[in-house]
Amino acid sequence: MNGTLFGVGVGPGDPELITLKALRCIEAADVIAYPKLEDTESFARSIISDLVADSQEEFPITIPMLTDPEPAKKVYDKAANVIAECLDDGKIVAALCEGDPFFYGSFQFLFSRLAGSYRVEIVPGVSSLMSCAASISMPLSARNDILTVLPAPLCDDNLRERLSGTDATAIIKIGRHFDRVYALLKSLELDQFAHYIERSTLPTERILPLDRVEGDKVPYFSMILVHKRGEAWR
Amino acid sequence: MNGTLFGVGVGPGDPELITLKALRCIEAADVIAYPKLEDTESFARSIISDLVADSQEEFPITIPMLTDPEPAKKVYDKAANVIAECLDDGKIVAALCEGDPFFYGSFQFLFSRLAGSYRVEIVPGVSSLMSCAASISMPLSARNDILTVLPAPLCDDNLRERLSGTDATAIIKIGRHFDRVYALLKSLELDQFAHYIERSTLPTERILPLDRVEGDKVPYFSMILVHKRGEAWR
Repeated sequence: MNGTLFGVGVGPGDPELITLKALRCIEAADVIAYPKLEDTESFARSIISDLVADSQEEFPITIPMLTDPEPAKKVYDKAANVIAECLDDGKIVAALCEGDPFFYGSFQFLFSRLAGSYRVEIVPGVSSLMSCAASISMPLSARNDILTVLPAPLCDDNLRERLSGTDATAIIKIGRHFDRVYALLKSLELDQFAHYIERSTLPTERILPLDRVEGDKVPYFSMILVHKRGEAWR
Repeated sequence: MNGTLFGVGVGPGDPELITLKALRCIEAADVIAYPKLEDTESFARSIISDLVADSQEEFPITIPMLTDPEPAKKVYDKAANVIAECLDDGKIVAALCEGDPFFYGSFQFLFSRLAGSYRVEIVPGVSSLMSCAASISMPLSARNDILTVLPAPLCDDNLRERLSGTDATAIIKIGRHFDRVYALLKSLELDQFAHYIERSTLPTERILPLDRVEGDKVPYFSMILVHKRGEAWR
């Protein structure tokens, strides 16, 4: 009998923000898989490091950080084969994912390769979208607000168009795009409603006014939240 | 010394989808506050009903379901006064909120009344936005997708405008707006990419093709997810 693959959202960073279901799946797993970048610790694994038992197999998936997507695709092809073998052996595999697996989550690349042939269950997680709003103590959206999530790598024209007519915006994956996004927000006079958050819920979390952010030191896990009607939730 | 108010996201419905932090805050609370509608059980409280101890005070806040917002405002004014008294007495108050407190969450109406004067901490929760995507086994957004969240009560022109140019859309608060939203999606030829989910992660969860939904029986907690590029996450 084949095993089960769980795509486990482990939340934004605070180990207390994993769900009871994630905890159960991780504890029940024979194999714990997680993405990592070369030469760095896996962020997803670091969130649940206290939960990993010596008896559990670990399977780190090292993702190349390149603009060309082809090398990463090959890595995921190989990783999916390894996980498929574990599932063929009847093992339970928990594949960790920062935040939520289906909200811009890396788990999707395993899901697309394995869901057709194996039992795959998603364990939704707390997303940084929500934790960033909590970090700045400012509601994300209320009543009939329109909320738009925009990845910072999109071109200026695309970002500008979608920033108009929305009530609230989360610009994600800021990283090296900060200076460009900040200039765009200023040109739209939206910088006054914008808040910058990096590493939400971690001990290293920082919340900064946009004019104090050093554009060349912005981590990938950072976000700018914009709310045109700051009072909408009163 | 004043107490603390926790705005606790209790997730989309499955009691296992609360976080360890939510569990801790609920267990530590002297008072558990929650919204409820007249003549019905509180959904938020039902999610954590197994956790409530006899020694804990409960404070249900009965919200009138009216299009006129004034009666609800008065209810929240009064509820905020009751909670303020508890906090003045040094008590810990956990105010429950379905999903996440700052993502269209009812907790915002207590937050806006109390955050200026008292210590208020937000415990982010798993949102139905993520759990609905998990329920239909279909990623919400990947890579540089634009994701738009649209409340169904918005007018057709507004919905139509925002449905164009986005990769993924979550139309929330469907309820009595189903027939109108479905007609709009058909007119935009988006119905083929749309999925209907109600009561995500509950035992009563239902996933239906849009043409099988009975428009007059759609609950408030329902969502339509639309992904124009169903293959974007491959």
